Amino acid sequence: MKNRTQIISPAFFIGKDGNGIISFGSGQPDLPPPKEIFRNLEDRRLFKYGLIKGDEHLRASLAKEYPAARAENFVVTNGASEALDLVMRAIYQMHGRARVLLCRPYYYSYLPIVKFAGLKPVFTDLKEGRINFEDFQEKVKGVKAVLINSPSNPTGRVEAIETLNKIERLTQKLGVYVISDEVYKDLIYGRENYLINGKHVITINSFSKTYSMCGLRVGYLWARDPNIVQGAVDIKVHTSMNTNILGQEMALRATKVPRSFVARQTAIWKARRDFIYEGLRDIGFDLWKPEGAFYVLPRIKNSARVVNDLYYDHKVIVYDGAWFGAPGRIRLSYALELPKIKEGLRRIKKYLRGRESWLK
Amino acid sequence: MKNRTQIISPAFFIGKDGNGIISFGSGQPDLPPPKEIFRNLEDRRLFKYGLIKGDEHLRASLAKEYPAARAENFVVTNGASEALDLVMRAIYQMHGRARVLLCRPYYYSYLPIVKFAGLKPVFTDLKEGRINFEDFQEKVKGVKAVLINSPSNPTGRVEAIETLNKIERLTQKLGVYVISDEVYKDLIYGRENYLINGKHVITINSFSKTYSMCGLRVGYLWARDPNIVQGAVDIKVHTSMNTNILGQEMALRATKVPRSFVARQTAIWKARRDFIYEGLRDIGFDLWKPEGAFYVLPRIKNSARVVNDLYYDHKVIVYDGAWFGAPGRIRLSYALELPKIKEGLRRIKKYLRGRESWLK
Repeated sequence: MKNRTQIISPAFFIGKDGNGIISFGSGQPDLPPPKEIFRNLEDRRLFKYGLIKGDEHLRASLAKEYPAARAENFVVTNGASEALDLVMRAIYQMHGRARVLLCRPYYYSYLPIVKFAGLKPVFTDLKEGRINFEDFQEKVKGVKAVLINSPSNPTGRVEAIETLNKIERLTQKLGVYVISDEVYKDLIYGRENYLINGKHVITINSFSKTYSMCGLRVGYLWARDPNIVQGAVDIKVHTSMNTNILGQEMALRATKVPRSFVARQTAIWKARRDFIYEGLRDIGFDLWKPEGAFYVLPRIKNSARVVNDLYYDHKVIVYDGAWFGAPGRIRLSYALELPKIKEGLRRIKKYLRGRESWLK
Repeated sequence: MKNRTQIISPAFFIGKDGNGIISFGSGQPDLPPPKEIFRNLEDRRLFKYGLIKGDEHLRASLAKEYPAARAENFVVTNGASEALDLVMRAIYQMHGRARVLLCRPYYYSYLPIVKFAGLKPVFTDLKEGRINFEDFQEKVKGVKAVLINSPSNPTGRVEAIETLNKIERLTQKLGVYVISDEVYKDLIYGRENYLINGKHVITINSFSKTYSMCGLRVGYLWARDPNIVQGAVDIKVHTSMNTNILGQEMALRATKVPRSFVARQTAIWKARRDFIYEGLRDIGFDLWKPEGAFYVLPRIKNSARVVNDLYYDHKVIVYDGAWFGAPGRIRLSYALELPKIKEGLRRIKKYLRGRESWLK
């Protein structure tokens, strides 16, 4: 392919699919959303402004999903992205240029969101894709908030309950906010999700992954501290107002969908996880076995070149680990059908012929 | 009414209607949206992420509405609010803590949006609700951007074309961005809207007012300078991603609605404008005659108390001019049916009995 623009971020790939391309790029489910969310949409005849916090029925329904949660402590947002942005901006309004601890590798939006808000990122490096508590307890000193993400994008790992308990105790003692991005909480292959709790915890979630509603952009934050709720609302009322009310209505319907919907989806994800994990190992990749979400992060030398070569020469989209703070790795989303995963792996294997040393 | 919470911002009133209350508060049309926007919504079966800039068909359709516009210079946003927020944040990323000139009275979100972005507001005071060019040309010195709004919320005034031409020339010479919030451009009672133009102009608009789609949150920015477009996209990709795709689809349908829809709506607004203007004058208010949008901003002493008394004792919602940088005035939206306007005016008149001196 001529005219090779150097690919430097995931944004390059948005809208670049079809045309024989196999995309292990964007983390969006290819499975359909529950059909219930579409029912009687045309009943809605007026589209007035809604509450900034979000529809009362939706927040009441969300509060029922969590122990001891109250509807007034939720803010419905334009996806988890806006929830994170509002929380960071609220922390800046309350505490000025504070430090925020990020776990590296991190979801690629975390770093810009922290910086845009005027906050200062500091890092703890994950060990085998999970939090290294020894390092965490050193780095947490002097920060105002930590941002954790289990199951993790991009590592696919799930934190041990023991680690989460230690983080609960330590952050509670220090008075540090724990912003827990749990957008993949319904996609764990082993145990149930463990909800990290405590009066400084802010839970972030969305309807995008569990219900395949990415493009509708409905997420939420649930803060036990009412100052964070108020701080987020005080910003959102000016910067975006209510989250779109039709998306909220569809989200409300999604909350009523039987849990068997989620269980059926998880079974599909698990089969794909097994397939890509074994397939990549057969090719010779060194990688962690995913325990949740739908990502793998195998090691490979020259990862930037690999991303470009695979896209331009083999019509395969993968993301550079460097975009997630993990140079020397690539991230593959396995949110696509098994035959496509198989074909993608075949192309990757072909590309690596004669380049086996890059996998060492 | 007992338990009077002191009302200090418009957010207090969100969701407070019905129950016999007459609301001159929120600026949302009560007219229905065009029926075309609802057609075949259920055809949409997948809700994948969309382009950060917005749907290509929608941007192409928008570009046709403006002379010499190109689809790639538009960014579709969560209402005009997010468009303004992104522009301000992009300016901060490019130019640091720059000054932004606001015209006072201003739409109440302008000041927090500028401050949240880390920019520094400076002010020029309007004269009879319109820009005082003498003052404007003094205050514009040393600013990086000016934010103008014609037709204006809250003054209801439309800038003279001559003034807009002078602003075009001056800002062009100085290299100052002109952020022109034209969300009421289709609601002018006299002439057509004049589109301010130039290579530093950023036009802001939304589907909320023209098409009664407030709650769907679809707006856009159109920047002639591609650096502003890129700057806004570079932020949005992390802070909210694509604007909800169902709202965008409905917005696309709205762009195809015959202009007669807008003309019919404007005729209704004009009748209401005449009615409330005459009614308030009959009561003894001193006010400017609205030329566009759907607001009046009459003078009254003790405006904060008036807002509280009218709400708690007379079930009438009006906004304090102080929230818009105009103490000693109240803002009334006339986005409601004539019989309701009539009843609201009756209650206000009753309240003012014995308080006539407040109108002087």
